[in-house]
Amino acid sequence: MPTLHKPAIFLPDNIITLEETLDFAKKEFKNNPILEKALKLITNTGVKKRHLIQPIELSLQHPGFGYRNSVFELESKKHVPSVVIEALENAHVKNSDISAIIYVSCSGFMMPSLTAWLINKMGFNNNTVQIPIAQLGCAAGGAAINRAHDFILAHPGANVLIVSCEFCSLSYQPTDNDIGSLLSDGLFGDAITAAVVTSEGGSGIDLQKNSSYLIPDTDEWIRYDVKDTGFHFRLDKRVPGTMEPLAPVMRELTKGHGWDIEELDYYIIHAGGPRILDDLCKYLRVKPEKFDFSRDTLVNCGNIASSVVFEAYRRMCEENYITHGDKGIIAGFGPGITAEMNLSLGK
Amino acid sequence: MPTLHKPAIFLPDNIITLEETLDFAKKEFKNNPILEKALKLITNTGVKKRHLIQPIELSLQHPGFGYRNSVFELESKKHVPSVVIEALENAHVKNSDISAIIYVSCSGFMMPSLTAWLINKMGFNNNTVQIPIAQLGCAAGGAAINRAHDFILAHPGANVLIVSCEFCSLSYQPTDNDIGSLLSDGLFGDAITAAVVTSEGGSGIDLQKNSSYLIPDTDEWIRYDVKDTGFHFRLDKRVPGTMEPLAPVMRELTKGHGWDIEELDYYIIHAGGPRILDDLCKYLRVKPEKFDFSRDTLVNCGNIASSVVFEAYRRMCEENYITHGDKGIIAGFGPGITAEMNLSLGK
Repeated sequence: MPTLHKPAIFLPDNIITLEETLDFAKKEFKNNPILEKALKLITNTGVKKRHLIQPIELSLQHPGFGYRNSVFELESKKHVPSVVIEALENAHVKNSDISAIIYVSCSGFMMPSLTAWLINKMGFNNNTVQIPIAQLGCAAGGAAINRAHDFILAHPGANVLIVSCEFCSLSYQPTDNDIGSLLSDGLFGDAITAAVVTSEGGSGIDLQKNSSYLIPDTDEWIRYDVKDTGFHFRLDKRVPGTMEPLAPVMRELTKGHGWDIEELDYYIIHAGGPRILDDLCKYLRVKPEKFDFSRDTLVNCGNIASSVVFEAYRRMCEENYITHGDKGIIAGFGPGITAEMNLSLGK
Repeated sequence: MPTLHKPAIFLPDNIITLEETLDFAKKEFKNNPILEKALKLITNTGVKKRHLIQPIELSLQHPGFGYRNSVFELESKKHVPSVVIEALENAHVKNSDISAIIYVSCSGFMMPSLTAWLINKMGFNNNTVQIPIAQLGCAAGGAAINRAHDFILAHPGANVLIVSCEFCSLSYQPTDNDIGSLLSDGLFGDAITAAVVTSEGGSGIDLQKNSSYLIPDTDEWIRYDVKDTGFHFRLDKRVPGTMEPLAPVMRELTKGHGWDIEELDYYIIHAGGPRILDDLCKYLRVKPEKFDFSRDTLVNCGNIASSVVFEAYRRMCEENYITHGDKGIIAGFGPGITAEMNLSLGK
């Protein structure tokens, strides 16, 4: 069975606390009639600190889409390699053992994606398959795991490197002052994570069954407006309510595998925001503490998009939370609105 | 064996001939000292006509990245569904038979990608897997076929829809007047293609073995500069010489499968430009007429990026060129510089 090993993470050293976020919002949007509502929503996210790739003062300026994309490229090249090295070490594999690199990132755009540079720079095999995905947003973490799972099923013996590079702060748009934008400005954080899925061996979780689901007629609910100034994140107020239709899908998937969604040993859930986690607990009839690792990720990093599931799982690995035979689910949610799910078993 | 069925194509009705391209270049770049060289290079591409999503007069203007991306989105939504319907009909499958949609496009950016809209609009299953790829450029045609191949190996019984939507003219940059840009302005065309890969049955070609290759240290040779004005295509003058290092890779892949690259029955090759085709013939020791279908695509549509391999194959299907037991290769080339190859067998 394909095994997902312990991920590695890089968090930038520009830290912004909740208090600093609120102070900045008060200053930047002081004449905005919805400021009070925004401050309340940001406070309610539960995010205590976030790590940004640039000091907040620079993030709040907009020197142009081109400049921001240059920051995205240069900072990726600076920080991705060390995260990759740690992920490879965690899986006890060498560069030459890797057959495919899945690179997910929605907060900048490069063509070719960083995969080509990584193969050259870090000495991966020249026949390494490149699978760059830029358009699944937060769901891309779960999608990357699912596509790595599939790749190994198609190519037994293969090992896949996943890299998730999310510099969400590069999509801050100072001129956007609607409630969804203000909330997002206080919710999203930056991070790079990486993890290896091997065909066999080592410790981690065995990927057993993957599945995708698109909630009908929600493709406008989480999206980018692409403007001259780059990517403008649009968040519909109905998004936090999407766990109600998703919970039965997760229940059905688990049931079809002979497992009970209410009785799993671990839940690696995308921490999109507090209500996502609270509602999902409620509709799945799972105790809130079962989502503690996802909640801790949100509290300490903010919503780090496709990196959330890797960081939540990394925290579980750090604490040896998953033991042999434990049953669990990975669930990433994002634009579409898409859910990418995987049922797995502790090794 | 996974079977690639006959593709469908949409070509926009704004046609520009070689003569019109040369006239426009003379007018637009009349004071450019490299104009004569550019005109010669454009003439040498052999491209007789191209189809553009907008009249050339509008393509040569630049109302901003946001406006162009809106054209990309609206024209995609207008024209993709009918191409998809035809591709499904060609494969004798229904929407409900599709398990995954691979959507490749490098000339605009949407999040979510059009996959979510397509699933909703055209009634695909809500558990259809979405695999959007935006960063492999021209190589994405071969990559889409290879990932569809892999998906079916991982999920026996599955059927995959591939859509390639390339509106390259939306990346025309009037202020770029280097020789690579001028050549590109006269080389690339617009098209939408779609094709279905089924797990079994029907007519088409059986996908047997896929492989990827990155030419070392060429990641800067074909790329986008991402600026405030959008995607600026950069083409290094060394690109046309890349078939010399790729030919031995294709020879080795074929040999490893027990086939001889010189003796294949059909070659579905990315027609990036005339020298790509001429050089590859030379280094593979294959007669030039073996590449006629790729060359016809170039002559009649220009370089339509990831759609080239689908259109070249569609032309073969139209003429019943491939018969039972014929051995062939698909090869897409693009940024990286990446080659995506697949060995296949006529059904």
